[in-house]
Amino acid sequence: MRLDANRAPLYEALERHAVRRAAAFHVPGHKGRATWDKTDAVRRYAELLPIDLTELSDTDDLHHPEGVIADAETLAADCFGAEETRFLVGGSTAGNLAMILGVCRPGELMLVQRNVHKSVVHGLMLAGARVVFLPPAVDPASGLAVVPAAETVREALRRYPEAKALLLSNPNYYGMASDLRDSIREAHERRIPVLVDEAHGPHFGRHPAFPASALQMGADVVVQSAHKMLSAMTMGAMLHLQGQLVSKSAVRQYLRMVQSSSPSYPIMASLDLARRELHTKKERSFEQALRTAEETRAGLEGTPFKALAADTTRGSYAIDPLKLVLFDATGTLDGFSLRDELERLGCIAEMADDRYVVLAFGTGTRPDDGQSLLAALKHIARTHRLEDRPAAGRREEASFFALAKELPEPVILHGEADDTEAVELGQAEGRAAGEWVIPYPPGIPVLYPGEIVTPSIRKQLERWRKQGARIQGASDTTLRTLKVLKR
Amino acid sequence: MRLDANRAPLYEALERHAVRRAAAFHVPGHKGRATWDKTDAVRRYAELLPIDLTELSDTDDLHHPEGVIADAETLAADCFGAEETRFLVGGSTAGNLAMILGVCRPGELMLVQRNVHKSVVHGLMLAGARVVFLPPAVDPASGLAVVPAAETVREALRRYPEAKALLLSNPNYYGMASDLRDSIREAHERRIPVLVDEAHGPHFGRHPAFPASALQMGADVVVQSAHKMLSAMTMGAMLHLQGQLVSKSAVRQYLRMVQSSSPSYPIMASLDLARRELHTKKERSFEQALRTAEETRAGLEGTPFKALAADTTRGSYAIDPLKLVLFDATGTLDGFSLRDELERLGCIAEMADDRYVVLAFGTGTRPDDGQSLLAALKHIARTHRLEDRPAAGRREEASFFALAKELPEPVILHGEADDTEAVELGQAEGRAAGEWVIPYPPGIPVLYPGEIVTPSIRKQLERWRKQGARIQGASDTTLRTLKVLKR
Repeated sequence: MRLDANRAPLYEALERHAVRRAAAFHVPGHKGRATWDKTDAVRRYAELLPIDLTELSDTDDLHHPEGVIADAETLAADCFGAEETRFLVGGSTAGNLAMILGVCRPGELMLVQRNVHKSVVHGLMLAGARVVFLPPAVDPASGLAVVPAAETVREALRRYPEAKALLLSNPNYYGMASDLRDSIREAHERRIPVLVDEAHGPHFGRHPAFPASALQMGADVVVQSAHKMLSAMTMGAMLHLQGQLVSKSAVRQYLRMVQSSSPSYPIMASLDLARRELHTKKERSFEQALRTAEETRAGLEGTPFKALAADTTRGSYAIDPLKLVLFDATGTLDGFSLRDELERLGCIAEMADDRYVVLAFGTGTRPDDGQSLLAALKHIARTHRLEDRPAAGRREEASFFALAKELPEPVILHGEADDTEAVELGQAEGRAAGEWVIPYPPGIPVLYPGEIVTPSIRKQLERWRKQGARIQGASDTTLRTLKVLKR
Repeated sequence: MRLDANRAPLYEALERHAVRRAAAFHVPGHKGRATWDKTDAVRRYAELLPIDLTELSDTDDLHHPEGVIADAETLAADCFGAEETRFLVGGSTAGNLAMILGVCRPGELMLVQRNVHKSVVHGLMLAGARVVFLPPAVDPASGLAVVPAAETVREALRRYPEAKALLLSNPNYYGMASDLRDSIREAHERRIPVLVDEAHGPHFGRHPAFPASALQMGADVVVQSAHKMLSAMTMGAMLHLQGQLVSKSAVRQYLRMVQSSSPSYPIMASLDLARRELHTKKERSFEQALRTAEETRAGLEGTPFKALAADTTRGSYAIDPLKLVLFDATGTLDGFSLRDELERLGCIAEMADDRYVVLAFGTGTRPDDGQSLLAALKHIARTHRLEDRPAAGRREEASFFALAKELPEPVILHGEADDTEAVELGQAEGRAAGEWVIPYPPGIPVLYPGEIVTPSIRKQLERWRKQGARIQGASDTTLRTLKVLKR
């Protein structure tokens, strides 16, 4: 049984239990039975609840795996090329928290890409880290931020050799992937481990059409959201480890701390099943999604819509073929409007910003999804008479994330400051932020508590306020006011 | 729609999506389709994946609820009698972490019941709290530990008026519930909030047969595992807030930090459905479970097995009728052996210790479960000829948790100590522990890093080692060796 890629040891153990139908005097309270009155809910859950189990004699223990979970994780490590793989039930969030806490004690220094997911910043806050935020590289053609340039990383490593780790996030939410090899090599020359939040790249390296994975490029700890492109349930993610620079036992210990002591077996088993699919079907796992994405891209020819591609970026970024990043080349519809129109026409996007709509393809994508999308786009083009309009010049306005290139001083972030006051957004300029501001998606915080509200940040906040972007973190999500630290 | 207990607003929003079948260009990658090859897995997940959705325009956002999640949480607050209720997808673990981090900054003092779940201690570690552990009361008849006596709490409040909170865990894993009113009143007189880990009592106060709930007794923050006795999926839990002593916004902020940014919608919707069941069926939700538990208790008459009850405890504890805590009154079979025999006969228990087997009943329990249990017990009695043996006297050996009654000095716990060494268990006596030791279940840590290994602890560890109890936390789970801090 061990290391047979065709098996799904955790899922199979649950299935055996479900079929056996022993009398259940253990949690959960539903005892595998959908007791709700209404038929639709019963139908949705009826087949799944029998495997919504708990730690039993033969279902192992996520926090100390020795049986079927250990087997499933060993198979996953083999599939993804890690020395050790840990299943996550708290999403990539749990992995990001644990890998930071596992390498960094209070007051220790971390080199961290500026444009990271909020869960990374939460990890830095919980760890009490001193953080040097590395300014991201910004692709001048698309205006999108990617990982910091290798020179930026080199300068940071040179100035802060005491850093406990370098933390990068790759690919970005738009599927732009960078080559991390130079940065990883330079960090390793200084015995500094590299942690990569690869939440959006669980499929990387698993098909020739995809960019290389962070593990393949030598990263020490890698976190992947197996639910984003693979077939796992939402909150199903994996943490991969390799090399000797990071204490595996410390990372494991913090995973025990931040994750539920009653982890969801259907989510864990879905990781096992998603791995088995990938492990056995290999590249064929992505055949339909890739073909659909390709046909959709081809179908954009002759429409006023373009997709982010080699010719719309300027730099050495690989573009994830499973992300279609659309924009209206006539400049008529902004990303938010285009997303809303698509949704009304039955095509639901992953996210939008003021220019782009991001469409995510995955193992479950079918060809007719692409046909629906093209039909919707053509309808939108007709309705807005976009065909009659000339292509707009690329907006020259620099992205918000095109920040100053110099390294900032280390900062210790605060979880939540008590000594804050709310001021009108216009009055916040020049003050230290007292709260987070996170446009979501993409979930990149633009202000951390303690950071100065620069004029450009203030302007960008006003723009988001007018567009009604969804803001997390801020107490006034309309962004009329902002909390700042009291003087 | 608002506040109609017959609705399940979150679940209904997901169902509408599933029925609409729009083309999904958002995560998760499965796009609502079970793509795995094997039939049994497809069947298990096929109906559930269409509602395994993400934050869409009409599915709201757990971390900033304004739509269907806000409605579902408002209904839950109404059902459970809270001012505010927050859905948890990371189990009671997430709630325990957030309520501690929400009231306590590094170096601040917390009064904490000694016998708490490890997630509480994890929260204290992450918060950097100075902790005074309050020795639990121990029921002399059963040897089981419950919440500290009101006099213990009073003395702690008197000595540490600067405490940021009093944290209690009630009921214990065995279903023994204490009256918290005196302790809560005394804490409130000093403006000290009371946080209660009520993971095992989500049903409390919802039927005349059940003990009062912590919210009813006046606690400020209460965490409940809705999956333990109610019908939610595993990892589904709730955090309830009331009163002015705790900053609700701080607790919310830490919930955002410790929980997944991609929360599971099937789990959240199961909270909505479990609430609706309780809200509309009310006491009838528990009719089958209560009747089955009662019939099973009655069926023990004339067998060598007894259940924990008013006459087997000595004190003012209420016994949760949904927990059947069995023991072999002849003293022949210990808890672990009895559990294993029951499992072989098709009855799976919640947990066992060296004396007891804990059997949990819930909303999904059916009368034939009880009949299976009685038949299995009679079979075990016959096989071991237990009927021929006299009832054993109560073992006089004091429970491990019958600790010294005096208040210890405050300690700051360490997440993980680097300067540790592994020694033979016998050599660890008198040393400071360098790691956790958590027998699981019940998940009560018996050693925290930094605590002294007393002779009685050493003896208890040896006992567990011989019994093969499942140990979490310790690096050598066989307990042959133990990590201690270097001298």
